[in-house]
Amino acid sequence: MNEVDHFGFNNPKTFKQRYLISDKHWQRDGGSILFYTGNEGDIIWFCNNTGFMWDVAEELKAMLVFAEHRYYGESLPFGPDSFKDSRHLNFLTSEQALADFAELITHLKRTIPGAGDQPVIAIGGSYGGMLAAWFRMKYPHVVVGALAASAPIWQFEDLVPCNVFMKIVSTDFKKSGPNCSESIRRSWDAINRLSNTGSGLQWLTQALHLCSPLTSDDIQHFKEWISETWVNLAMVDYPYESNFLQPLPAWPIKVVCQYLKNPTVSDSLLLENIFQALNIYYNYSGQAKCLNISETATSRLGILGWSYQACTEMVMPFCANGVDDMFEPFLWNLKQFSDECFNQWGVRPRPSWITTLYGGKNISSHSNIIFSNGDLDPWSGGGVTKDISHTLVAITIPEGAHHLDLRANNAYDPASVLLARSLEVRHMKQWIRGFHDNARRQH
Amino acid sequence: MNEVDHFGFNNPKTFKQRYLISDKHWQRDGGSILFYTGNEGDIIWFCNNTGFMWDVAEELKAMLVFAEHRYYGESLPFGPDSFKDSRHLNFLTSEQALADFAELITHLKRTIPGAGDQPVIAIGGSYGGMLAAWFRMKYPHVVVGALAASAPIWQFEDLVPCNVFMKIVSTDFKKSGPNCSESIRRSWDAINRLSNTGSGLQWLTQALHLCSPLTSDDIQHFKEWISETWVNLAMVDYPYESNFLQPLPAWPIKVVCQYLKNPTVSDSLLLENIFQALNIYYNYSGQAKCLNISETATSRLGILGWSYQACTEMVMPFCANGVDDMFEPFLWNLKQFSDECFNQWGVRPRPSWITTLYGGKNISSHSNIIFSNGDLDPWSGGGVTKDISHTLVAITIPEGAHHLDLRANNAYDPASVLLARSLEVRHMKQWIRGFHDNARRQH
Repeated sequence: MNEVDHFGFNNPKTFKQRYLISDKHWQRDGGSILFYTGNEGDIIWFCNNTGFMWDVAEELKAMLVFAEHRYYGESLPFGPDSFKDSRHLNFLTSEQALADFAELITHLKRTIPGAGDQPVIAIGGSYGGMLAAWFRMKYPHVVVGALAASAPIWQFEDLVPCNVFMKIVSTDFKKSGPNCSESIRRSWDAINRLSNTGSGLQWLTQALHLCSPLTSDDIQHFKEWISETWVNLAMVDYPYESNFLQPLPAWPIKVVCQYLKNPTVSDSLLLENIFQALNIYYNYSGQAKCLNISETATSRLGILGWSYQACTEMVMPFCANGVDDMFEPFLWNLKQFSDECFNQWGVRPRPSWITTLYGGKNISSHSNIIFSNGDLDPWSGGGVTKDISHTLVAITIPEGAHHLDLRANNAYDPASVLLARSLEVRHMKQWIRGFHDNARRQH
Repeated sequence: MNEVDHFGFNNPKTFKQRYLISDKHWQRDGGSILFYTGNEGDIIWFCNNTGFMWDVAEELKAMLVFAEHRYYGESLPFGPDSFKDSRHLNFLTSEQALADFAELITHLKRTIPGAGDQPVIAIGGSYGGMLAAWFRMKYPHVVVGALAASAPIWQFEDLVPCNVFMKIVSTDFKKSGPNCSESIRRSWDAINRLSNTGSGLQWLTQALHLCSPLTSDDIQHFKEWISETWVNLAMVDYPYESNFLQPLPAWPIKVVCQYLKNPTVSDSLLLENIFQALNIYYNYSGQAKCLNISETATSRLGILGWSYQACTEMVMPFCANGVDDMFEPFLWNLKQFSDECFNQWGVRPRPSWITTLYGGKNISSHSNIIFSNGDLDPWSGGGVTKDISHTLVAITIPEGAHHLDLRANNAYDPASVLLARSLEVRHMKQWIRGFHDNARRQH
């Protein structure tokens, strides 16, 4: 049970927060607690995709805790009404989530014999990585350190150029096959031309095996769906067969790019090639009968909740110019974004709040945070990729996509991620040792 | 203008936060901003009682800013309705106040030419001192350091014994005159005996010049009012004539104790002496026609707001045993306190939240906070009176009462407060120099 509102006293309601726990390798003597700061999705799914924690549990004599983020999975403050309106959604913020984590750890330390004198380390990836870093910044008395994997804590306001994300996606495709990014760059105009006529729309529906007929009203969304597919591929461009957002082959962008070698073919041939490429992402299992343009990733992610968070605190400016990247140019338009948010959720974003709250680039007074980033990962553009101090360290993984380091050990792991993981463990051991040394000194 | 709710997006309301600003001594080159983190009262009153900031402005080339705390003075989020019910009071928390300060500083830095590259130092006393310390802990990117004067950040849960506060009050009286604390210790039973009869109550009303006739129902409150008077005297036991909570002579407890030299007199004589003592506190000006047992201090303090805060976050356990102190014994009874809070405000306290949020005794990972305390001040019992690290330093002022160091220079200042102030300035200069050195290194 946790408070629905940690920051106000008018609402005494509590809710059930789900968490998973494993003490298989936990040792009270010199041990530790690894605490996964859950992000926007079902915690079981994150637990199953964070093999790193399971892999290092024995070495760190660690208890593992995976805490679900409020408003995701089964941790719904108002049950089925949680997304009903802005009043029910009012408690979906990163601050409330961090307070949940602090209360949960306090509760576990009080109720599990021996846990009280153990150091806790926050671990998270992506938004969960931001939470891990912010948790250490705001609650350094609760966690001795944080591993923030692929955490784009600077993807806010103008801390980084708004096109950095799309640029990295494009680089991934450019590097993965000849003419690959160029083929995609040319596909947008081909779609625009084809969608000008009814027969073109019909042809597109058929050629791309879409589940519902495409209308001219859908075209913008259709292109966004394709863009998001390329973005997602960049995030999960892992060196081995995997199933994070979708079941995929090893180095999926390379596989995709095999279909996109020739950018100068006719519009229809180009789009047929695009279909083959999309089909790798959406139908690697061969089970899909058609492609559904209203979905891009696993349903284990809470897209509703994230859409609300993006419309309130997590305001991340994105843009593309079509030159440094392979996308149709678009600007970051805060006014329009705000209006859309107001229409959908009845709230307006506060785009500078996260920076005011968590410090933006001015975080050097904190300590014991590892920021790890993969160079293939578009989110690395908003991440911390250079050491800030000797206790705020950056680890880069040249061959890594989105938090590859948090995934389970794999025979096909590149050397760079093995090195990253061993550095991470070394830092964590230092934090743990420091905690136990301090405790001994005080007794 | 500031957000009414920084931590939720359903309420887009803003309110006018009052702040005072002086740039008389401010210099853009190598200067600084001293930011008073307003506490539970009218900011003009605090401004007038924080001469220290005015005294050091020139030396630190400092702009002075005094920010009023929401729900006090004129900074009322809902105007006259602000205290109407728990719904309107829902945004009265320390977290919201800190967020107000962060937003205000961000605003000032953006709008005052030259202020953007200046280091800001938080300064506060008492609850405002807690806010200054917590502000540095939670927003180290906004303030380079904090002077937390007489800030009882450990007066929560069981971090310190609940009787430490009353013990210090008693010691002050014990040291200020022979038999003084013993006279007060004996006065409670004298009151109990006298209030047993109607004529006794009548006599008490007359002898103590009370504005309204005392009834047997009032007795508990009457004794609490007297206790609070002794407590307040301990807080403002300054070495010179002053007017903080009330107009008072120099070393007021010494003056009071001149009337309390003989504890073994009759009940009525003892109470007549108690009246003389109380009269020093309530009628030093000689203007009062009678003593009003519903008031103990200046109306510039927001007692309503503080009562709500004490009933929610700021849950400070107090007790007395009558042996180590001069008070009638009372226990800390959370259950009863919670019920009273619920009756008065419709809310229940969360007594461990402040510790979970701000770390309790486990604050060593922070930096650049000065905790100053006067040994005469009962609040020093819940304060940080030993260095925690070389950047979390404690300064004690043996002859100091409640944040004497924040008051204006005075010819009667004891040497210890002069030393304290000069140490404080030395630390602040270090923080300011560090900030400007860093800035130069980055350019």
